[in-house]
Amino acid sequence: MKDLAKQFGRKLREVRKLKGMSQDRLALSADIDRSYVGRIERGEVNITLEKVYQLAKVLGCDIKDLLP
Amino acid sequence: MKDLAKQFGRKLREVRKLKGMSQDRLALSADIDRSYVGRIERGEVNITLEKVYQLAKVLGCDIKDLLP
Repeated sequence: MKDLAKQFGRKLREVRKLKGMSQDRLALSADIDRSYVGRIERGEVNITLEKVYQLAKVLGCDIKDLLP
Repeated sequence: MKDLAKQFGRKLREVRKLKGMSQDRLALSADIDRSYVGRIERGEVNITLEKVYQLAKVLGCDIKDLLP
């Protein structure tokens, strides 16, 4: 299921860039460690559903926009 | 975010029943411990995105059908 994490990471990065938000700002706003955001975007993390919702909220998008 | 887990658990139970599947069978098919499925449905677990996809696959539904 490594693919899932990678696909999610790519989507997250894509939406984050579309919103013109830096990793730092996303991390700060979502109360997630900056290095952890990097690991999520690289698909190295098996993220929890809660964190997906947190990220979607900060990015002002629907959770469905972040799912592979 | 306890609400999220609870809402997800309710949705999961709803879809599982609609499919006429027992907790036991869902647990077995999704390779998840039976007691863990119970805890997910009661909203006691901060589930990972990977497990959400596993459950959706076994239930033959879209992941979006399981999300609050």
